[in-house]
Parts: sequence; C-alpha cells; structure tokens
Amino acid sequence: MAPIAPRSGDAVFANVERVNAELFTLTYGAIVRQLLTDLEEVEEVNKQLDQMGYNIGIRLIDEFLAKSNVSRCVDFKETAEVIAKVGFKMFLGVSASVTNWDADGTCCSLILEDNPLVDFVELPDTCQGLYYCNVLSGVIRGALEMVSMKTEVTWVRDMLRGDDAYELKVKLLKQVPEEYPYKDDE
Amino acid sequence: MAPIAPRSGDAVFANVERVNAELFTLTYGAIVRQLLTDLEEVEEVNKQLDQMGYNIGIRLIDEFLAKSNVSRCVDFKETAEVIAKVGFKMFLGVSASVTNWDADGTCCSLILEDNPLVDFVELPDTCQGLYYCNVLSGVIRGALEMVSMKTEVTWVRDMLRGDDAYELKVKLLKQVPEEYPYKDDE
Repeated sequence: MAPIAPRSGDAVFANVERVNAELFTLTYGAIVRQLLTDLEEVEEVNKQLDQMGYNIGIRLIDEFLAKSNVSRCVDFKETAEVIAKVGFKMFLGVSASVTNWDADGTCCSLILEDNPLVDFVELPDTCQGLYYCNVLSGVIRGALEMVSMKTEVTWVRDMLRGDDAYELKVKLLKQVPEEYPYKDDE
Repeated sequence: MAPIAPRSGDAVFANVERVNAELFTLTYGAIVRQLLTDLEEVEEVNKQLDQMGYNIGIRLIDEFLAKSNVSRCVDFKETAEVIAKVGFKMFLGVSASVTNWDADGTCCSLILEDNPLVDFVELPDTCQGLYYCNVLSGVIRGALEMVSMKTEVTWVRDMLRGDDAYELKVKLLKQVPEEYPYKDDE
C-alpha cells in the first residue's frame, strides 16, 4: 500500500474546525494577565506559560498526526520543517521559516512570520523579563516529546522585547528510537 | 444613504482570521486547570472565569461591531437574536437559539447547539460546583455593557453538570440610552 501523502499546512488548516483568532488572542491575553496577578514573579509566569504549553502540546500532537497525514520524519531537519510549515499553519494559521542550523543538524531556529498571540499586545515596564509567548515553546517541547524527541526550546528574539522578529531556538537533546507496532512498506 | 445590511454570522465567520478550534479548546482547558490549582475554591474559579470573560467581552465588542455591520438593535429581543445568530457564529463558529422569553421581553435563554469549549472535557468529582464555561457569561455581560446594556448572565443548564443542554439566562437589568455623535438617516 502506498503511504498517504502528507497534506500541506494550508490544506489541513482549511479543513479543521476553527474559532475567531481575536477571541483566541484575547483569551490568551487574559491568561497571561491572570498569571501575572496570581504569581507576581515574571520568572514564575514564564515557567507556568511553558508548562501550560507543554500540557497543550502533548495533546495537540494527536490532532496533528490525525489531520496532517505526516507519519515519520527521516531526521530532525525534516521535523523542524514540518513544525514550521504544517504545524504552525494548522494551528495558528501562520507559517514559520527554519534557519540557523548547527553543523550536526540538531539545533535550529524557527522564525515566525506572523504571530497572532501578540495582536494588540503592549507590555508595561513592569513586565520586563516576561516571555509573553512562552506557551509556544512549551507546545513544541510537549508535542515533540510525544514523538520521542527530547528538546529544549528557548526564545532568541521577541518583538515585544524590542527585537525585530520572533525567533525560537529548538535544540534536540535526545532522540529515543520509536518502536512501531507495524512494519513500514518495504 | 441606505444603511449597510448586517452580515450573517456565517458570512462574517468565513472572513475573519481564525485559529484551530482544538488549540483554543486546549488553551481554555489549561486556563481552567491553572485557576483550579492557584485558587483552590471552585467558587473563586467561577468568579475569575467570569471576570476574564468580561475583560474579553469589553474588547471583543469592537471586533463584532466592525465586522458584522450590526449597528443598533431596536430592542433587547433583537439584541439577543443577534448574539445567538451572529455573535456566537462569528467567534466560536457555532450558533445558539433564543427561548424562554419573559412577558416584558427583558429576560431570555440562549441555548448553545454546540460548545467548542468543552470538547474532550470531563470534570473530576473534586470540581463539583464549577461552571467550566463561565468565561462565556462574562463575555456576553462585558460586550453588552459596552453598548449600554447592564445584564446579569447565569447558567441554567450545563451538560458538564449532567444537564441535557447548555443554557444561559440573560437578564437585562438596565439600559442606558445611547447618545450618538451623528444622526441616523431619516
């Protein structure tokens, strides 16, 4: 049986259930505000956003695999491309580009071309040190962990902090070989 | 000049920026979980969700007015219909029906036909008393307040509590006549 071809991010995004992006943006903003009120320490808020993202990511990967027809990536390079072109598109409706590969292909940067999380957002001076979009790093880390890749995901550039782009560094720490219950076609 | 006709909820929803509904659902779930951890008292979580919804609603009304071409409703009955048919559709992609009007037309129920907030949600026994979707009541209350209608919005039925539908009671408490900076067409 020929494998089913992976679907493009656009094709998947066109066919999933969606909600209004502004509602999502405002809802996310309400979470961040809530955490800032409850936790006080910006560093704690960063941690909680990352943890929330992780919890979302470990579940979102199922929807991703079910809807995208992506099955297995040959290496981490392909994985990063799939996250950038299919994953971001499918969930946020935007895509990202992959750059800054290190020599052994285990570390790269995802640059977001657009970021719906930050529409209408301005951070007050009291929020210095906040990684407002930290949920995203958690989502990627959680989702990859479910397909046996331990990663470290950190912000390199953040426009809310005055940088000129949103750049996430994704570093592969360890890859556990997956055991499939079935054999691939030879 | 003839007034611009209001657009249907479907038409508006088709033309706004959107994100994946599952991402929204999981993100909302992450908020509720976070609040339950931080606040401990279910009653406090209900209050916070309502307050977050209020903060969202007072901003979401702008997007609603800008995109829907709805300008002014002749009475509260029309307002309720517009929320049910245009508002819910435009933001969540679902519609609601309006029933149970009282005699003087100031109190009704909105019945949700579908509710994307609760996909995959099951409440543990420790969450008795939680109004999981309480953000919705806050959104409606906040949005209506920005168009000069003070309302009280409460849950009558909640499927996560074992009821057979999601039913929100919307009661108009006070309506402040709006002053427009311009005259309507005669």
